[in-house]
Formats: sequence, C-alpha cells, structure tokens
Amino acid sequence: MKPGPSSMGGDLDRIYAPVAEDLEALTPLLRRELASGDPFISGLVDHVLSAQGKLIRPALALLSASACGGADEQRLWLAGTVELVHVASLIHDDIIDAADLRRGESSVNALWGNHIAVLLGDYLFATAFGLASRIRHPQVAPAIAEASVLMSRAEIMAAETGDRPHEDEARYYAIIEGKTAALFSAACRCGALLAGAPSTTADAMAEFGMRWGVAFQITDDALDLIGDPGSLGKPTGSDIDAGKITLPVIAALRNAPGPERERLLSILQRPWDAGSRDDMRELLERHGGLQHAMGAARRSAAAAAAALDVLPDGPAKASLLHLAAFVVVRTH
Amino acid sequence: MKPGPSSMGGDLDRIYAPVAEDLEALTPLLRRELASGDPFISGLVDHVLSAQGKLIRPALALLSASACGGADEQRLWLAGTVELVHVASLIHDDIIDAADLRRGESSVNALWGNHIAVLLGDYLFATAFGLASRIRHPQVAPAIAEASVLMSRAEIMAAETGDRPHEDEARYYAIIEGKTAALFSAACRCGALLAGAPSTTADAMAEFGMRWGVAFQITDDALDLIGDPGSLGKPTGSDIDAGKITLPVIAALRNAPGPERERLLSILQRPWDAGSRDDMRELLERHGGLQHAMGAARRSAAAAAAALDVLPDGPAKASLLHLAAFVVVRTH
Repeated sequence: MKPGPSSMGGDLDRIYAPVAEDLEALTPLLRRELASGDPFISGLVDHVLSAQGKLIRPALALLSASACGGADEQRLWLAGTVELVHVASLIHDDIIDAADLRRGESSVNALWGNHIAVLLGDYLFATAFGLASRIRHPQVAPAIAEASVLMSRAEIMAAETGDRPHEDEARYYAIIEGKTAALFSAACRCGALLAGAPSTTADAMAEFGMRWGVAFQITDDALDLIGDPGSLGKPTGSDIDAGKITLPVIAALRNAPGPERERLLSILQRPWDAGSRDDMRELLERHGGLQHAMGAARRSAAAAAAALDVLPDGPAKASLLHLAAFVVVRTH
Repeated sequence: MKPGPSSMGGDLDRIYAPVAEDLEALTPLLRRELASGDPFISGLVDHVLSAQGKLIRPALALLSASACGGADEQRLWLAGTVELVHVASLIHDDIIDAADLRRGESSVNALWGNHIAVLLGDYLFATAFGLASRIRHPQVAPAIAEASVLMSRAEIMAAETGDRPHEDEARYYAIIEGKTAALFSAACRCGALLAGAPSTTADAMAEFGMRWGVAFQITDDALDLIGDPGSLGKPTGSDIDAGKITLPVIAALRNAPGPERERLLSILQRPWDAGSRDDMRELLERHGGLQHAMGAARRSAAAAAAALDVLPDGPAKASLLHLAAFVVVRTH
C-alpha cells in the first residue's frame, strides 16, 4: 500500500521508507477487518479503501513505534485504528460540508446519500474501536477514544459558526487542536507506548504529534484559501463556503484598515469561485494574513521537531524530523 | 434516574428495583463524562439527557451483573457505555428517518440540523468507547465494539432497501439481530463478565439478550404499524415511510391473495396517515401478519427466559424473567 500519485509528493516514499512494509500490510488488514459478507457494504468499503490517502496517521504511529525501539504486530492494529478513525471522520465531514469530492473521487454522500454516509462512518468508527480494544496495552484504547472525543467536540465547535467574532484566534487553535492534532498526537503517543517507551517519552511523542498536527492544519487551511484545486485533488474555498474562518483570514481581518476589511468580509459572504481566490490571495498577502499563519505553522513545526530530542538517532527519527521540516512547505 | 411517565409503564419500576440505586447514578455519571466546557455542546448534552428513555440497556447490564453475583463500580461504566451507544445510534437514526420527535421531545436533527446530529452522535459514541476502554475486563470493550459494528452494518442493510423481495424473513432477522439485539446481548454478556461469571454463563446471558432483543424489536415493529402515536410518544408508520418492511407485513404479504396483496403494497407506497393505520391493522389481522409476528416474538421471549436456567434464583433473575414475560405484551 503505497501513497498514490495524488499524495504529498515523492518525498513521502522516502520518509515512509522505515515503515514501508507495515504500510503495505495496512490495506489487507483493513479489508479483513471490514469484511461483512453483505455485497452492498462490500461495495462501500471497496470505494473507501480504493481512494488512497496519504496515510499520515498510520505512518506517524508506525514511525513513532519504530523510533522508540519497535513494537510487536499490534502496531499494525494501531495503524489501522488511526486510519479508520480518520476515514470515518472524513466521511462524516463530507456530509457536514456537503462535499462532492474526496481524495479525487466522488464522496460517499455524493454517491449514496447522507444516510449511508452517516452509517458507513459509524461502521468504520466502530471497527476502529474494535481494533483498538484488542490492543493489550491498557492506555492505547483510552487514548484513541479520548482523541475521538476531542475530534467530535471540536467539529461541533467548528460547525456552530453562529455570530462569532472573526478574530478569535484562541478558538481557532482550540478547534484545530481537537479536530486534527489530537488524533496525530494519540497516534504518536500510542506508537511509543506499544514500543514500551517510558511515560516521559510517550508524552514527548504526543507533543510532537500535537505540534505537528497544528502546523499541518494551519497549512491545510491556508491551501484551502490560496491553493490550486488541480494539484490539491479537491476543491478549495470549502471553509469559506462552510462559514469557517481560518488563521490567515483571522490575522488579515485584524490588520486590514476599514475598507479593505469590508472587502475581505464580502469575499467571505459570497459563494467561492476562482475570482474569490485571486482577491483573497491579494488581500491576505497585503495584510499579512498568510505571513502570520505560515509563521505560526513554522513555529509549531519547530516545536514538534524539538520534542524529538528525547529520541536516539535513527532512520525513524530522521523521517519524523523530515516530516516536521516538510509539513509547512508542501503545496498540496 | 427513574424511568419517566412516558416509559414502558409502572411495571418497570418494580422490575428495575434490584438496580434502582445504580440507575439513579447513571445520569450524573453521563453528565460528568460528557462535560466539555463549551456552552453550545453543554446545551446539546442537556437536551439529550433530559429526554429520559426507558434505560433498558443499562438496566439489562446491571441486572445481568447482579444476577451473576454482583460486580464492582465498573458496572456503572458499562451501564453508561451501553446507554450512550444507544442514544448515539438514535440520534443518527433520526437523521436517516428524518424524524422530528424522539422520546416525546424534538429530535436533535429537527432542532439543530443534520450536521450537528451527525457530530453529536459521534461525540456520544466516542465517549461511550472511552468509558468502555477504561473497564479492566479484557473482553468488555471488544464486545461493545463488536455490537456497534453489527449495529451499523445492520443499519446499512436496512437503509439499502433497494428492490428487495418483500418476503425476505431471513434478511429481516439479520437486520433486527444486528441493529437492536446485538447491543442487548453485549450488555448482558458484559454484565455477566464483570460479575466474574464463567464463559458458559456469559454465553447464556448473551443468548438471553439476543433473544430478548429480537422479541423486543418484533414487538416494536408491530407497534410502529398498529400502535397509537399518543401512548407511544412518537409517530407511527416511520418504517413504512422509510421503505422498511417488517415482520407482520412480510407474513401478511406471503399469505394474502392477489388483490389483497396489491392493497397492502399500495399502503406501503403511499405516505403514512391515520387511515393507513386502520387499513394496515385490518389487512395484517385478516392475513395473519400480526399473529405470525407476535408468535415469533413470544417464542423468542420464551427462548430468552430459558437461557436464564443457568442462574441461581434471586431478585435480579426474577426481574429478567419478568422482562422476558413483559416484552411481548407491552402496548407502548
């Protein structure tokens, strides 16, 4: 199971090399876990597993386990768990965002409707917990459940856009730490735990995942505003259309003088198109929105890298450092 | 936490008596587990916890533990887990059925929209797994996860109504065993496990829950066809409107001669109203649909009661036997 051509890029092959065999074993494992005997459900599962993502969460879990001295076959169950939780949340997210595309393919809700998407997400989520609950380390399943709790809480906060002030940076961080970084953090912590790492090391790995995840999401949010839909493999502007205000916009709104601020607010309120992207890019650059966001992402990535100081040198640690360097420069 | 006036009836107070104190502790436990610090989420949680259901799943878990000799405080976590899995699935079901009412109150989707309902269900589901994953018996969390897998699979099968033959009784049983009885079965099995019961006893309790759950669902499905919306506290005909064919209809369609069969099929295809209920009741009675379904429910309830033979006599066993006798005679 290799990351496909629409992934972050060829660099990932090199970064994933220390755990490449494990990642190859992931899709067969998920197929076995999701086997149901019902042809309709099998078709849904085939669709979901065929649209290959970047496998960042399983890769982080496996690299963390390897960097902490290696773990037994339960590391694969952990890798499967975090990927399934992620895919389940994507399927439910696509309902919330009414998205038609996911990983360059039609989304589950677009093909089969929201009802099936709700249930398929539940099925993947329950299967993930089944895998996690069979892992014998007593802290792993609780950590996965806790991350899932934080994810759904943050998604509710994000969905409740209401009449929030647009400059609430603290709320933005609370949301992205929950909806994105918590699962990265749990993946890294649990990888370390399965390798038998002491709690200080597990905490450091959790910190790596949290900081890396924040850097990842800030970058992702910036790409949704100024990225190229072709190379991203998904439409941009989805946050704007969903009424979600992300860090570059928060910062630009804080800096922009009155009339420019009004122009920015008007882009937020109209349906997103290519013209919006050009206007948005110009305003975000002029008022320091992109600079602020990417600076924050770089600092978070640097904090992630610093957390790895507890680890001995080795190929898995090198890959994690490479990921920390890579997270803020990716273009798709 | 007592079953409210809209519950199965006064009988439940007597049946639940051996575990009444535990059931009183359930809502405070769930409030603590679902505390988030976010006012919007707290409002959602308040709404969900204020609409008191019958607490059958936690009661079965607690009665099973008590009947098998009693268990430590982890029995409350189990009770909370099964109630949360159930409530989460109800919230997601109401999206699928586009239901406006639940437990006599407005449904989450009616009040806050499908998006929030998806996420709130996920939040409750993840919280349930957090609770389950802290229970120290190694078979409990996997059993809860497995039941959740079976539930979501069965819900997908039920949602995929497609062009099924209307007489597929085997498929009907597969669906209700998964969507309803699997969680009852897991509740009873895990209650027994927490009491330290041997595996033969745990298997017998799982069989009790499975058979009881089948009897419960057949009865519930019959009430959806011929029950009185007022005393049920929810609208009837929801299965028909959702395109779901249940046992009384399956049996009547098998027995009815051509023209009567066409009449029955036409009721299935038009929107449900009070006239539909009267016509449906008449056709189901004339062609033995209700008799067939309630006979099957009675046999399943009797099999449930027989599974309890492994238990010593006592108040909790008496309550379980009472529930087995009660499940098919309830009118709402």
